[in-house]
Amino acid sequence: MSGGPARGRRRGRERSSAGQRREALRAGGGTATLPQRPWKTLRNTRPPLEVLSADQLEAIHRASLRVLAEAGIKVTDAEARSLYKGLGAEVDEAEEMVRFDPALIEAQVALAPAEVTIEARNPARSVTLGGNHVSFQSVSGPAFVSDLAKGRRAGTYAELCDFVRLVQQLDCLHLASSAPLASLDLPAQSRHLHGYYACARYTDKAWNASLLGRGRARDAIEMAAIARGRTAEEAAGTPMVHGNINSNSPRLLDGPMAQGALEFARHGQVVVVTPFTLLGAMAPSTLAGALVQQNAEALAMVALVQAAAPGGPVVYGGFTSNVDMKSGAPAFGTPEYTKAVHATGQLCRRYGLPYRSSNTNASNCVDAQAAYESAMSLWGVVMGHVNLVNHAAGWLEGGLVCSFEKLILDAEMIQLMSAYLDPLPVDPDSLAVEAIVETPPAGHYFGSAHTLARYETAFYEPILSDWRNFETWNEDGAKTAAERAHAIWQQLLAAYEPPPMDPAIDEALKAYIAKREEELQSADAIER
Amino acid sequence: MSGGPARGRRRGRERSSAGQRREALRAGGGTATLPQRPWKTLRNTRPPLEVLSADQLEAIHRASLRVLAEAGIKVTDAEARSLYKGLGAEVDEAEEMVRFDPALIEAQVALAPAEVTIEARNPARSVTLGGNHVSFQSVSGPAFVSDLAKGRRAGTYAELCDFVRLVQQLDCLHLASSAPLASLDLPAQSRHLHGYYACARYTDKAWNASLLGRGRARDAIEMAAIARGRTAEEAAGTPMVHGNINSNSPRLLDGPMAQGALEFARHGQVVVVTPFTLLGAMAPSTLAGALVQQNAEALAMVALVQAAAPGGPVVYGGFTSNVDMKSGAPAFGTPEYTKAVHATGQLCRRYGLPYRSSNTNASNCVDAQAAYESAMSLWGVVMGHVNLVNHAAGWLEGGLVCSFEKLILDAEMIQLMSAYLDPLPVDPDSLAVEAIVETPPAGHYFGSAHTLARYETAFYEPILSDWRNFETWNEDGAKTAAERAHAIWQQLLAAYEPPPMDPAIDEALKAYIAKREEELQSADAIER
Repeated sequence: MSGGPARGRRRGRERSSAGQRREALRAGGGTATLPQRPWKTLRNTRPPLEVLSADQLEAIHRASLRVLAEAGIKVTDAEARSLYKGLGAEVDEAEEMVRFDPALIEAQVALAPAEVTIEARNPARSVTLGGNHVSFQSVSGPAFVSDLAKGRRAGTYAELCDFVRLVQQLDCLHLASSAPLASLDLPAQSRHLHGYYACARYTDKAWNASLLGRGRARDAIEMAAIARGRTAEEAAGTPMVHGNINSNSPRLLDGPMAQGALEFARHGQVVVVTPFTLLGAMAPSTLAGALVQQNAEALAMVALVQAAAPGGPVVYGGFTSNVDMKSGAPAFGTPEYTKAVHATGQLCRRYGLPYRSSNTNASNCVDAQAAYESAMSLWGVVMGHVNLVNHAAGWLEGGLVCSFEKLILDAEMIQLMSAYLDPLPVDPDSLAVEAIVETPPAGHYFGSAHTLARYETAFYEPILSDWRNFETWNEDGAKTAAERAHAIWQQLLAAYEPPPMDPAIDEALKAYIAKREEELQSADAIER
Repeated sequence: MSGGPARGRRRGRERSSAGQRREALRAGGGTATLPQRPWKTLRNTRPPLEVLSADQLEAIHRASLRVLAEAGIKVTDAEARSLYKGLGAEVDEAEEMVRFDPALIEAQVALAPAEVTIEARNPARSVTLGGNHVSFQSVSGPAFVSDLAKGRRAGTYAELCDFVRLVQQLDCLHLASSAPLASLDLPAQSRHLHGYYACARYTDKAWNASLLGRGRARDAIEMAAIARGRTAEEAAGTPMVHGNINSNSPRLLDGPMAQGALEFARHGQVVVVTPFTLLGAMAPSTLAGALVQQNAEALAMVALVQAAAPGGPVVYGGFTSNVDMKSGAPAFGTPEYTKAVHATGQLCRRYGLPYRSSNTNASNCVDAQAAYESAMSLWGVVMGHVNLVNHAAGWLEGGLVCSFEKLILDAEMIQLMSAYLDPLPVDPDSLAVEAIVETPPAGHYFGSAHTLARYETAFYEPILSDWRNFETWNEDGAKTAAERAHAIWQQLLAAYEPPPMDPAIDEALKAYIAKREEELQSADAIER
């Protein structure tokens, strides 16, 4: 399962330029196999798209505080209830219900920092969440995996490793997920350790952890520290990993999620708090109502993180979409979804909190629907000033499937958005008045000095789009974008080289896993 | 070639509800076969997306005036040169070059109205261009036609009629094109008459004309008037039809285009002036430079229309994209394209002119690329405050092909944008605090009174997206969006009923065509 030099699918031709590729990667220059835009941390300097008036924003804020005061949330974890009680919240131990005075919530939210920088193993890959920073993270959580050759199937660890390698190869992705698909060939209680290893070893980008219980959270901190040549104690206070907790909407925070969040908060790691509020299912069928509920749950979780670690990093996650009212199936990339993304951005900016959302779609294959639903999501998140775009690449079927072809499609779509955000230079040189005056009426600019000086780098160069004429495209097999994506990810994977790692660190990671696997063999993984 | 009751592909089952369908259409309720959003004129009340600072905007404006003053444009039509001369422009008759004092251009542009309403045959279908109005027009101009069953092929009049019928069926489309594909089975010199007839008869929406010469322009005015039960003289001054002229970029306005524009302008019809400025080919390879050239050419054409009809309607068309620098092939739906759309909107608002742009892509089939390039275009045009979105539905292959499946894909994408623009209601009812408080932790809202009162109409209902689970979708043939679109357009066409028309008007249209066909048989169609 190693990504080292012995991997069979790599070919001689591609290996010969491995050194160059590594050098290019270090310089942020992409791989030799794809004309990628170089790695860059991204900022959206345009004003955010907004859908709520100032009054509407306040109405949603006030309504969510009213929900927290009147109805409260159920918290099944005794330690979390105790922390809430310490803040002055009203706790009903018998019902496990916690109700909040609005001033308490506002005071806790005010403690949270507006920005947090996650330090990657390679410091050049560190990312800042907050402000107008935009970062893209690969898909996280699907049970299944699919590609055009082998179809839709249960995931394995080997495929997880390949996916992480591809995330490393794609310079538009800022963060990796340690669970892009379920490694169903590994025991459930220790599976997370191998996902962490894959990320620690096969990418030098930051990666996310599972916060399902204290043990998984702690393992992520330990392994992230080892990968940086430190102990967890030495690393304390430096955000290295981030993890997501979901409320069990409506209005329930369960024990494992609370425990995972508390473990991360106490070690200065980044907790993302995300209600999953589907209109008409786990939330009211009105967008305003779903936003009220989302906001109530998110603020309660922010307050918990701040109770455990005042001033510690916490990210507001939005995941509000709607169901198909005919079938109850979740829908994504809908107009409701995009509006929820923009409204949630307004809430986050009101509170001064970093913002996480997602690139979603509900298509069953990598077709036009997958693309237009993702476009509704991506325009939504990028122009809504989302800081952490989870599921940015590879998500299919409403999140049930990790698709290798969708990974490539999304990389192209992310690059398009990234290039759209590039400034538009306007200066005497770019205004080109001399070139225009010199070119005769009905002439052309192909050979002009102004063009020749720029033609190699003038425009966005796609990785997936095929701009050849119909005849050439047709003679070459009339391949759809999905079919071309299939070839592209295989080429990228064949060209993969792992980022350098001290063999002693690799050994220490493996030793940690071995120790923990033994401990977890007979234990309840969530509790440990 | 009639669309009357005898059409073979209509089936009894579908005909039985024709009356209901007609009623629904009249009420703006869409057809019975698709869950469409009802016809509505659309406004984008959000602030436009912009990419230029105020200084940059002025720099482009000034540079384009400098191009017009120093280099000017070549105008091969003597009447147009004479009109320019009458304004005080410097005309070199030997070289056919016209140069402009900046003040002359600014004065002419200031004459043009900020808004124009095009009166459709059915007044309920009239559309206003300008301000924050957004209208979508079907594809215009491809030589070829394609659908999944018959493939890519030369177009015929029967297929043109079917396409126009589908445009009538799709309530998200505000305007039809009289040339969605070339009727290559009809003689070139009189082909336009049949395109006009198809639009006059098979849709009650407004439609565009060919402005390739005075004759085609005049025919459109005559037939639009006849369709409204008027003579061209009675209709004078009422905008009924619109047409597009392109400069032959760089810096050439040819005779037929000038003559078509002048004929329309003198009859109070709507002229759209659109430079086709591909970066690196017919324009400089810098976006700023291409915008300078586009703006110079557009303003010169605006000045001509205003010289012929001061205060008459004219629309600023933007069509700036880039080529693939490796092959020279045009690229569409690129980041450069989207930025050009937003920058051009800023220029149009500076001048107070209605704005036309397009929904473009360069894909060779109806796949993910077609969707994501169209998404870059559609987000661009809708959020850039384009008033007239040409090629909004059906365009494929960089405009070489009219695709029946792309028509459906675009209709879905347009509906998504339209629903995104719907306001987000925030009031005590939609905030749903009571429903939230009443729903127990980890409960659901499926059966709540708040949901039941709304579930049928709460959310956007797609026409193309398939939200069924993978198993159901797979058992039903695993159809891609393109394959589903194929079935949808056939159903829509089978359900088509022509809008009512007085038989005497229909006869008058046919008589006009017969007379003009005879005249044109031995004539030069462009001159006549």
